[in-house]
Amino acid sequence: MRIEGRNAVLEALRSGVKARKVQMLRDIKPSKSIDEILHYLQAQNIRAEFVQRQELDRNSEHNAHQGVIIWTAPFEYTPLGQIIDAAVKVSNPLIVVLDHVTDPGNLGAIVRSAEVFGAVGMVVAKDRAATVTPAAFKAAAGALSHLPLAQVTNINRALERAKEAGFWVAGASEHAEEPAWEADLKGRMVLVMGAEGTGLSRLVQKNCDLLVKLPQSGKVNSLNVAQAATALMYEIRRQTQS
Amino acid sequence: MRIEGRNAVLEALRSGVKARKVQMLRDIKPSKSIDEILHYLQAQNIRAEFVQRQELDRNSEHNAHQGVIIWTAPFEYTPLGQIIDAAVKVSNPLIVVLDHVTDPGNLGAIVRSAEVFGAVGMVVAKDRAATVTPAAFKAAAGALSHLPLAQVTNINRALERAKEAGFWVAGASEHAEEPAWEADLKGRMVLVMGAEGTGLSRLVQKNCDLLVKLPQSGKVNSLNVAQAATALMYEIRRQTQS
Repeated sequence: MRIEGRNAVLEALRSGVKARKVQMLRDIKPSKSIDEILHYLQAQNIRAEFVQRQELDRNSEHNAHQGVIIWTAPFEYTPLGQIIDAAVKVSNPLIVVLDHVTDPGNLGAIVRSAEVFGAVGMVVAKDRAATVTPAAFKAAAGALSHLPLAQVTNINRALERAKEAGFWVAGASEHAEEPAWEADLKGRMVLVMGAEGTGLSRLVQKNCDLLVKLPQSGKVNSLNVAQAATALMYEIRRQTQS
Repeated sequence: MRIEGRNAVLEALRSGVKARKVQMLRDIKPSKSIDEILHYLQAQNIRAEFVQRQELDRNSEHNAHQGVIIWTAPFEYTPLGQIIDAAVKVSNPLIVVLDHVTDPGNLGAIVRSAEVFGAVGMVVAKDRAATVTPAAFKAAAGALSHLPLAQVTNINRALERAKEAGFWVAGASEHAEEPAWEADLKGRMVLVMGAEGTGLSRLVQKNCDLLVKLPQSGKVNSLNVAQAATALMYEIRRQTQS
């Protein structure tokens, strides 16, 4: 995987991502962030390759390298069983399941929020779903190195396994009857977010123990899935911490 | 502002960008995206100017016009006084103020959430702050056509004007003593969000009637400013609607 841009690279290195290869602009000006990047690379025993701007431009995927690109080892998913085993050991564990969210930026943004709110792990689908791309990494701002992610072939089977371990499954749906604050979201919780545009699939919705919605008074829109996930995780933490 | 290329133009029109002028290749082949572009232009009462390829090439900034370039009308900000006047007529009005948020994607994402949660308007700074670019339009997903935005030279002066109209000013800060759910966020509320990375400026913080924080149990991060704004707007709506 490739990560570009000073902040994204620095965030990744800070959170323990191992670089496999590094390219840096030959005449890059020393700065606080560049110094810190070099410091981390030294600690990892990785030597930066200093190259011409054209080389960086060629290797850049988002045209935002700011003089530095790193190549990392492929993302390591965590087995679902391991996430569930860790979850049942803590109080009010939260697992966030994405029912085919397709935008890597949304995936990363949800990972970031889930990590901040102390979720135990996340579950994503293997096919027709966002995977851990550099865009996801960038949006996650380091959180992908701390929050375990399971990749499963069947979301419904994953929900069943969580239920067997004593989890309640709450699905986010505009068609839910109760606002999130009226639902009981304490205890072992799975929060399921549906795909952008289409929402939860019919079978997943059927598999949910409860459905919750967010207040909506605007004219055009529903919330972006990452924003909705964040508001719901906030509500879960409000209930368990207040 | 100039936008070129079929996808970029279509995305912009879909998300509510207003065209001022349009050039299209004289012998452009009809296609799904071209038809949709023409449909949006018709709805905006804008007639495409059909021109030779050389003309498009000359006007292209990125050499990626694919037969279509639009010039957008400048975004129309709303005077702050007008937003405040409208706000005091509704119950529990919410105005969201961005204290120098710099990323247009974050600006757009906050506009989207604010519109969904029924905010009356938003206030942004004129300098050193994100403005309404196509990236902001994209993230706002249409909400920029519905939520009035004021652009002010001085955020503190704007806060004072809101206070004079009976608003309470709540600032988001990691250093706040109370979590959002313990604060009273009902009534006429201004929610102030600080810049990415640096947060609220010292003077703005001093100008806040109260500071609120979000729960945080992760290892690396704080929430992205758009996510934090969404969670706080959710909390305000929970308090006023439940």
